Parts: sequence; C-alpha cells; structure tokens
Amino acid sequence: MPQTVRSLEALFDPRSVAVVGASNDPAKWGYGVAVQLLAHDAPRRVHLVNRRGVPVLGRPTLRRLTEAADTVELVVIAVPAAGFLDAVRDALAVGARAIVAITAGMGESDAGGRQLEQEALALVREQGTVLIGPNCLGVVDTTTGLSVASDPVTPGSVALLSQSGNLVLDLDAQLAAAGLGVSRLVSVGNQLDVTLAELVRDCADHAGTAAIAVYAEDLRDGRELVAAGRYARDAGKPLVVLAPGRSEAGSRGAASHTGALTSPARVVDAVCRAAGAYRVESPAEMTVVLKALMQAHRAAGPRVAILTDGGGHGAIAADVVSAHGLAVPALSTGLGARLRAALWEPSPVANPVDLAGIGEQDPASYARAVDALLASDEVDAVLMTGYFGGYAEDPASGLGGQECDAAREIGHAVSVRGKPVVVHSIYPHSESVAILAASGLPAYRHVEDAATALRALVLRAPVDDDLALPPPQPPLPDTGYQTVRGALAAAGVSFPPARFVRDRDDAAAAAGELGFPLVLKAMGLLHKSDSGGVVLDLHDTETLLRAYDDVVARLRPPAVSIEGQVMQSGVEVIVGVRTDPHCGPVALVGLGGVYTEVFDDVACALAPVTPTTAKQLLLSLRSAPLLTGTRGSEGADVDALAATIAAVSRFAAAHPELGDVEVNPVLASSTGAVALDARAIAAP
Amino acid sequence: MPQTVRSLEALFDPRSVAVVGASNDPAKWGYGVAVQLLAHDAPRRVHLVNRRGVPVLGRPTLRRLTEAADTVELVVIAVPAAGFLDAVRDALAVGARAIVAITAGMGESDAGGRQLEQEALALVREQGTVLIGPNCLGVVDTTTGLSVASDPVTPGSVALLSQSGNLVLDLDAQLAAAGLGVSRLVSVGNQLDVTLAELVRDCADHAGTAAIAVYAEDLRDGRELVAAGRYARDAGKPLVVLAPGRSEAGSRGAASHTGALTSPARVVDAVCRAAGAYRVESPAEMTVVLKALMQAHRAAGPRVAILTDGGGHGAIAADVVSAHGLAVPALSTGLGARLRAALWEPSPVANPVDLAGIGEQDPASYARAVDALLASDEVDAVLMTGYFGGYAEDPASGLGGQECDAAREIGHAVSVRGKPVVVHSIYPHSESVAILAASGLPAYRHVEDAATALRALVLRAPVDDDLALPPPQPPLPDTGYQTVRGALAAAGVSFPPARFVRDRDDAAAAAGELGFPLVLKAMGLLHKSDSGGVVLDLHDTETLLRAYDDVVARLRPPAVSIEGQVMQSGVEVIVGVRTDPHCGPVALVGLGGVYTEVFDDVACALAPVTPTTAKQLLLSLRSAPLLTGTRGSEGADVDALAATIAAVSRFAAAHPELGDVEVNPVLASSTGAVALDARAIAAP
Repeated sequence: MPQTVRSLEALFDPRSVAVVGASNDPAKWGYGVAVQLLAHDAPRRVHLVNRRGVPVLGRPTLRRLTEAADTVELVVIAVPAAGFLDAVRDALAVGARAIVAITAGMGESDAGGRQLEQEALALVREQGTVLIGPNCLGVVDTTTGLSVASDPVTPGSVALLSQSGNLVLDLDAQLAAAGLGVSRLVSVGNQLDVTLAELVRDCADHAGTAAIAVYAEDLRDGRELVAAGRYARDAGKPLVVLAPGRSEAGSRGAASHTGALTSPARVVDAVCRAAGAYRVESPAEMTVVLKALMQAHRAAGPRVAILTDGGGHGAIAADVVSAHGLAVPALSTGLGARLRAALWEPSPVANPVDLAGIGEQDPASYARAVDALLASDEVDAVLMTGYFGGYAEDPASGLGGQECDAAREIGHAVSVRGKPVVVHSIYPHSESVAILAASGLPAYRHVEDAATALRALVLRAPVDDDLALPPPQPPLPDTGYQTVRGALAAAGVSFPPARFVRDRDDAAAAAGELGFPLVLKAMGLLHKSDSGGVVLDLHDTETLLRAYDDVVARLRPPAVSIEGQVMQSGVEVIVGVRTDPHCGPVALVGLGGVYTEVFDDVACALAPVTPTTAKQLLLSLRSAPLLTGTRGSEGADVDALAATIAAVSRFAAAHPELGDVEVNPVLASSTGAVALDARAIAAP
Repeated sequence: MPQTVRSLEALFDPRSVAVVGASNDPAKWGYGVAVQLLAHDAPRRVHLVNRRGVPVLGRPTLRRLTEAADTVELVVIAVPAAGFLDAVRDALAVGARAIVAITAGMGESDAGGRQLEQEALALVREQGTVLIGPNCLGVVDTTTGLSVASDPVTPGSVALLSQSGNLVLDLDAQLAAAGLGVSRLVSVGNQLDVTLAELVRDCADHAGTAAIAVYAEDLRDGRELVAAGRYARDAGKPLVVLAPGRSEAGSRGAASHTGALTSPARVVDAVCRAAGAYRVESPAEMTVVLKALMQAHRAAGPRVAILTDGGGHGAIAADVVSAHGLAVPALSTGLGARLRAALWEPSPVANPVDLAGIGEQDPASYARAVDALLASDEVDAVLMTGYFGGYAEDPASGLGGQECDAAREIGHAVSVRGKPVVVHSIYPHSESVAILAASGLPAYRHVEDAATALRALVLRAPVDDDLALPPPQPPLPDTGYQTVRGALAAAGVSFPPARFVRDRDDAAAAAGELGFPLVLKAMGLLHKSDSGGVVLDLHDTETLLRAYDDVVARLRPPAVSIEGQVMQSGVEVIVGVRTDPHCGPVALVGLGGVYTEVFDDVACALAPVTPTTAKQLLLSLRSAPLLTGTRGSEGADVDALAATIAAVSRFAAAHPELGDVEVNPVLASSTGAVALDARAIAAP
C-alpha cells in the first residue's frame, strides 16, 4: 500500500495513450475501448497495438508497444493473461506512468493469476507507475475527455468508482435520468495497486468532482478507506457507498456471540460511519442520495415540516417521512398563526401544513409558507409534497407564471435561511419544479425518494476517533477465564470479587472472604452456562459446597471460580471486539441475554472507541430506552457503561493475539456497569 | 347502511345524465364535469342545468332539472350547499336512480351540513336512489364511456375508489406509466349513502375490473369492508388499500397499554388482513403491487431464487429481497448441477444464480435457468435482475432476436410451472422485456420495486374467522380486579389461585390455604405496580403479614388479593382487546413487560379470534422465537397461549360494556399460559 499520496494525473489526463490488444472484433474489450478512445477527440496522441499489425477501426497499428517512437503516458492492457506480464514490461519500457489493466483471469481466478499479479506489482512499484485493475473495465474522465472503457457515460460531477460493470451501466442511466452525470468512472477491478481509498482521495482533490459514489464488494483496508473518507468530507465532497452483502450469513459457527453478530455488513457500516460516508442499499437509493447531498444545505436535526395542497398527500408524506426515521413534530400555535397568515384561515397548520385550496387562488402562498417554516427554529427541513408544479403543467389554469414566481421565491428563501427544502411533485418535469431544481432543491416524483433524501440530509455526529491502533501489549499467557478476567480488570473493567479455587477447603475459605450470595463457575468450558457449569444464588456455605461437589463430579473442571453475585437489577448488555481481516478490531455493543439474537439489536464501530463514540453506539440501539429509562425501569449509568466499552475496545486493540474478546453480560444499572463474565479467543 | 346488495348500474352506465350546476367558468366543478361528460360520446342523453339558463359549452341548458321531458337516470349535483336539498328533490322528481353529489360544505364542515346530509339521505333512501358523496369529485367508468369528473383518466382495469382528489391525479399518472389504467374511478366523498364497502362489492362483480384500489382516510365500518374484501377475494379481484395515518400518535393518554398500542393504524392492518386486502404505504407502492397482483401466479412461500448476469446486481438483489422479508435460500447441490447444465461451469449456482457471461454467448441460457428454477420444489418464485433486455436494446450485439426468443420461452415456462417470475431490468422498455411483460411477468426498473412485487405475491394464510360478534352476555357488575379476574377465569383463562381478603386474619388464613410463595396486591389502584401496591416473593406468613400491614398503611386499599406466585420461568405476553369505534373489538398480543413499549412488537386482529388466528398473530411477532424456543430458552406452549388469547377475545366481544380488557402479563411457559394480572375499563 502506498505510504505517500501519488499523482494519478497520467491516469485521468494523459498526453498520450496506447491500447494494447486493440481489435476489430466487437466481442473483444480491445474493440470497445478503442472505439471510445477514438470517439473523444481530446488533444492526446493515441497508439493502437495489435500483434498482427492489421489496421484497427481504419487506423494503422503497432505490432508491439515498444515500436512507439516516444513516451506513452497511459497504457491500456487488453490482452489475455498469458501476455499480461510482457505487456506490462513493454508499457514500462515506453515510460508509462499509468496502466489500466483490463486483462481478466488473474488474481480473481487462481494461484497462477495471483502469482502474475505479484510479479506485475513488483515491476510497476519499482518504476513508480500506477496500475488500475487487473480484471477491470476501464477508466473515463469526462472532464478531460479521456475514455478507455467500452461504454460511454453521461458527463457530470459524480466520480463513480465501481467493482461491477453492469452496475455502472445501471448507475449511469439512473444518474442521467436524475439530471446528474459522471466526472470520472473507474472500474477498480482487483485493486492490485491503486485501491478504492487512493481513488477516493484523488477524486476529493479533483475540481470537476462534486461527490464520490463507490460500488464495492470488497472494501480492502477499511481504515485506509476511513482516512480517505474523512479527507473527502473535509474537502466537502460527499461519499456515498453501495456495498452489498447485508443478507449474507454472518460468520456461521462463530465461537462467540461477538463473532456471530459482528457480520461483515456491520463492519462495513462501522467503516462508513467512521469515514463520514453515507451507505445506501441500491442504485436507486444511491441516485436519490447523491442528488440530495450535492446541494448546499443540511438539516441540523430530524424535524421535518410537510407542506401539502390537499390532505391525502400530506397524510401519506407524514407516514413515509416517519417511517424513514425522521420526525414530523406538531408545530407551535405561534408558528401556526404565522402560517395561517401566510395561507388562509381554513389551512390546517399543525404539520402537515395544508394549503387547503389557497394555492389555486394565490400560488405565492406556497412561498410565504415555506419561508415561515424555514424561519422557525421548530423546523430543520421542509418537504413540499404533491401538487406543486400542476399550475405550470396545465396552461388552462392561467397560474403557471405565478407558480414559477413562487418557485423563484422559494429558492431565494432556501438560500437566505440555509435549510434544505426537498420537493415531491406529481409534476417533476413542470417549469416551476424545474425552477426549484435549478435553485438547488432536490425534486423527486415519489415521496419515498423525497423522504430518503431528507434522511440523507440530516447531519450526523462525526466519528472522529483516532483509529490508529495502540502499541501492542505483551500477549496474554493463555485465554483462560482467570487470565482474561484479570487482564480486563487491570484495563479498567469492573468485575465482582472472585476467588479461583482448586479444592473444597479453598472454596469454603473463599466464601468466608467474599460473603454471600455467591456464584460458582466451572472453568475450562466454552459455554459454561449451557453445560450447567454456572450455579447462581448460593446463599450459604452448605449450598455452596454442595454445588461445588456437584459441578466437580459432573464436569471435572481444572478450577472453579467463586464470585460475588450482583443482586442489583439492571440491563444486560453484550460488549465485544472482533478482529476483522480487513478492518482490524471492531467493537460491538448490544442488548444482551436472549434478546441479542431475537432482536438483533447491536451496533458496531472500529476499535478502539472513545467513551463518546461508545455512548453514541449505545444510544443508537433500539433498546436504548432500557438504558436511558422508561416506565418501570430507572435506566442505567450510561457513562459508566460507555467507559467499560471503551476500556474493552482499547484492551482488545492492544492484544492482536486475541481474535475475539467478549464481555457478556455487562450488567448496567443506575450505580454502574459490572462485567459478569468474560472470554477471549485466540486469533486464527 | 343497506342490508341488501343494490344495483349501481345507473351510477356507472346510465342511459341519461344531467349536470345540475353546469357552468362556463373553468374555476367551477360544473364546468369540468360538463366538459368531460360531453367529451365522451357514448350513446346517452345529456342535460345541462344552469339556473340562469345560459348556454354552457355551446349547448342549450335547462333552468331547472324538472324541465327535462323524461326520466334522468344519473344526476350530478354541482351546486353550493344552500341549493343541495332542492337539487336532490328535483333529481328524485325526474326519476333519478343515482346521484353524484359534488357539493361541498356539507357534513365535513359543520352541524348544519350534517343536518342537510341526513335530510338528503332520508329522501334518497325513501326512493331507493343511490347517492355518491357529497363532497366528492365525481365518477368515471371507462368501460361504459361515462365521465362525470373534472379530469380524464387512462382506461384500464383497475377500479380506483378514493377519498382524495389529488391522489387520483397521482395514481392515474403512475398507473399509466406502469402500463395500467382505470376501469372505474369513484371519488367517495363523505360516504353518506354509498360506502367504500358497497363499491368494493360492486367492482368485484364488474367484468371490466381486474383489481380494486382504495385510498381511504376513513374506512367507515371495518367489518363491512372485511366482508366486501372477502367477496372480492372470492371473485379473484385483488384489493389493495392505501390508508395513511400510521404516523399519527395512538390514543395518547390511553388508560391501558392495550389502548395505547391498539393504534388506529393497527386496526386498519387488522381489517386489511381479515379482508384479504393488501395494504400499501404510498401511491408508488400501490402501483407496483397492483401490477404484480394483476398477473395470474402466486408464490406458495417466501423462497426467492435470484437469476442475474453479473455479481453486482445479484448481490444487491439478495440484500433488497431479504430486506423485504423474503428468503434467498442456498439451493441444493442437485439443483445446482441442473443449473450448471443449463448455464455453464463458471456460473455460481448457490443463489443468487449468476450467468457469469454465458448470456452474451447464448441468450437461451436465461430461459433454461428460469425453467430449472421454477421446476424445483426449493423455489417459490424467481427474480430476474439486471441486464436482461440489454441485448435487444443494443442492435450492435446481434443477440436481440435470441433474447426475444428467450423471453418467449420464459413466458411459456411461467405458464407451465404456475409460479411467478418478477423482472428487474436496466432496460424495461426493450423489446425482450416487453415480451416478458406481455406474457404476464411484472417488470420493473428498480430492484426495490421487484422485491415489493414479490412480497405482494407471496400467498398469505387467509383469516377466515367468523367476525360476527357473539350475543352480549350480562354486563359485569363492576370493573374491579376481582370481578374481571373471576369473569375471565370463567371464560377459560387460567389464573393462579387467589383469595381476596379484607383483614389481617383472613390474610393469614389465605396463606394457609394457598401455600408459599405468595404475591400480595392492593385493590382499587389503576397502576398497582407503579404505586407499590404489588409485593412479590412472600415466602412465609411473617413476611406476608408485614407486607400486608405496610400496604394497608400506605395505600388504604378496599381489599387485598393474595395469590399464589408462579415460580415457573417463561415469557411475559400482553393480551388485550380494545373496542374501536369503527371496527368493534380488536384483539392485541405482544411481547410483554418493558419490551412492549421499547420494541413496539405487537399484532392485532378483529375480535373474536380463533385459536388458529391467535397463533398466527403470535408467530408474526419479531419476538416469536422467544415463544417457539431459542438457545437459552426452551419455548412456550404456544397452543395454550393461543387458546388464552381466543378466550379473552371472545369474552371481550361478548361484553360491549367494556372498552378495554387487558390481561397483562400472561406468563407463557412450556407448561401452559397463566394470567398474572387482568383489568377492564368501562366503555366510554
């Protein structure tokens, strides 16, 4: 992985380009790439290389790239895998500063391909040449007129970095239909040299790019992507990530709950959250979100005011907006009075706010209402839903001009107030909605899309934890319960007092030291509870010793732990850290006990987490009210719990020899957070 | 409400029509209706009535409807409320069999309007004339060429029954864009005479209607709609309902959990489920679902096989389909082998099934794979996702003809196998996708829509409970705990043994009869637990009497209940019945305790429910695994719990004097279901 920022200029704006493997056969990549390259008449020299030397697309060709008389800055390699290394050597020989390797059958196929890749990587790294792919579909930069890909794209300002070819066709068509387009397209392929993260950084610096869209099935180094995402965020370029795999089973047969619950999809969530990236689930959602994020304003909170002309669209919008996790709060009577003044007496103003017919008498009422809503500190964003656009669409109404005037006033109000207005209209192609769109208001045909846009516009608290891993600490001598418990306690996790005993007399003595009630745990078992290796509610020495005898007879454990039993009631929480192969340690928190699996209510973040981030994770759980308090539960000391999570995450991050660390349950109560069990599993 | 089925023929296919209030002013309804009526040249006599007698739209007018020389079957009334009753009398005088009352400012406005409505209702009912509205926007029947509404609609086979005007504009446009259209449009207005339910029944009998779409903010009598929905289901006409209000606060300040949780939206869910109707959340979803349900085949279960050409679309589809609550199961090795034979060796066949490039060599491989999937008993439905359509779209491919052939073969396979195939294509307008659509396969541009369609196509177990209310039983003498508990016990609900005592000696005696451990409850409190009126874990007489003294001193209850404490562990469930003003008693079940509110995990059905329906409700909960058993919980006797729910629902349905009945919690364990508390609240 490159340690310094490299220039990708030769990739996106070379003065000279060669296609090795240029062909007249439309079934071959060397045909499509040559067609597209020649179709763009930017002032760059082009060489086509065909080993038989036949003219391609009516142009003379070189039999070999080294026949080129001068330096070739960008070389596209579209030959079979067998000829790949030779083509790379030729490219380096003619001074290539960038290579686009379309060749497939490489590392994605077999060990031979992986070997070829490593040899090629050594060659290009030695010369400082950057390489895209292999197994990629090419590169386009519509801002420089470069196209070395087999399909054209619609020009625009979205940088599209993709691991799939058909997805590019899909996204390009959807972006174009939404009035957007592509600044740069990079098919990243196997990411042998240039990674997604490096491309994100480069596109963040690219003047022609306003937003970055990533389709990735494999994020590679998650922490590198986090750093690149933060860089893009600081450059004001939204990063939107489509990364499928949510439905894939987690690590089946994982030895810990943490392992099972920290699914690859949750790790991607954690990476996106830390990177400040917005994760989407489909090409359609990506398009909707890009359109929203490419306008200037953000909502400081989730409170949406809905402005409708007619109850039906208002009621549906309220449902859909709420279902997207946003709030549709009742507005104050003061604001209601200002809205009635902007509209008329019959208008419902509680939220949804309904023109109730005044629009067809006075289209300017729309603009007055939007301004009154944006001016209020009760409202973070406005959704206009339903009919607006209909007057401009219907010449017979005679109100089109006034509606267009209202649209201009709404655009002005948005720029003055600095809050977003999102538009849902039955008439998205009307002149008045076009004026709204030209003023930067994202407009959609379906209210679901408008709600998706609003959700994307709500500012989220940045996760700015320093994700550098702490220096490793001396490895634990073993992963037994006593060792792990002791090390976690030393790292700041609270446990009840315990004694580890090996005979009956020690057990009795431990009881004397600890006091009752006690818990007895047999050591050396993976699932202590399931095996009957944990006995609770030991209220006197006689019962304790009976339990001791029974457990020893049944399970023959190497040792037994006798611990104080916490009688405080509270909420059971699972805290864990799993080492992900791509992203390193990932912390997990969730509602514990049997509910962990049933409600799957967990949240993840890259470890180590700060107590602040740990608290955010806790409050993001659906079960957060159990921690913060509901009727019948007084709530827990969330700060103490967050500190415990932070301590576990720091501990795990400093112990790379441990694959999973799990503290389950942590009993969170109003008086603190106490760990009732702990375990660790050695890294594979 | 009509007790017998009435003919609506004069409404949809009258031989003569009059518009009372016809106007040349485009701002008036009497203009638009007259324009549309005259634009359709079906062979029916038309009278325009204008009180000044001026020609309207170049046609002579009558000053008064009674000047018509002969019978007028359908009269449209578009005059202000002040003239409404006279217009109704005139309509009846000329023998009208149907009236469309556009007039607003009636019952929806004030008491005066409601009075006018009742007088009009008496008049029309006396003559047996049907009336739509008032406060409606008109009626269209594209199968008879009748239009007495101000906007045209696209002809088709969807009956659209709506309470909102702008929604009709929206839905009509969306249906048309989806290749669908409207058979009948009825704006139902205030439903003074003809209700949604009556229209659903009539449209179920209408040969030109293939599906029924309802937009309703007020379902009126829910049980009548259930009967009509079942009638439509038996007639093979899908019923799709858009009924906003999900985000409205439930009954805030309700005195019971049941009251708070049985929100109006959940009651609508219950009505739709019982009616066999499909509930949607937006016009876009309604359009997608109608298109899906209007084709012949249904999925017997939720198992979807995904067929893609390229990993990206397959991976995204798997996520989106799973997120829609469907299954994407791994396919067997046997089916995998058949799929590889249909495709080629490199094709992944686990699910998603990926052509992996064979499509561009052999488009017929698509059809072979679809047929292999449909033929398997591992698959309930197939989703084709992504590129299909691309060859026909791109003439340069030279494969368009073969792709169209494949489309025809896929259509044939669907009709032979009798299972649905839903299509998501980047190229929905290609010739090959058009062939799929013509074969009845619903095709969509967005994979979310295809997943929504698949979800709608999965057969749901019908709820065929007899929803007739049982004969009322003698009202309870009071709603005190002792009375309610006793009545529920007599109705078949199991409770622990209890004694109701009024002094200390009785308390001690009760302990002797019941044995320990015991629970003590103070009577006469709404929230016993919150007030410290419940004491658990009384293990001996001394502790019992101390608790008794304490409770009596603190709370001065009229009586105290002493009950056996159930020591069996289990799952706490809330069971309740609430009387809804429109739908009568509605049963609610949910995970109990503090989780009821946190996870909002409840399900409702119209009461009384059978044990079968009660079990379906339980199994529909997210927390169902707690009842059926998970790691660490052995599960509960679900049949006993379902029997308890059925008993509570029968009891409540037979006691209309009770508004809410709540048994909370019911402790469900492997040995049965025991009610630990109960209450009832008198109906308002």
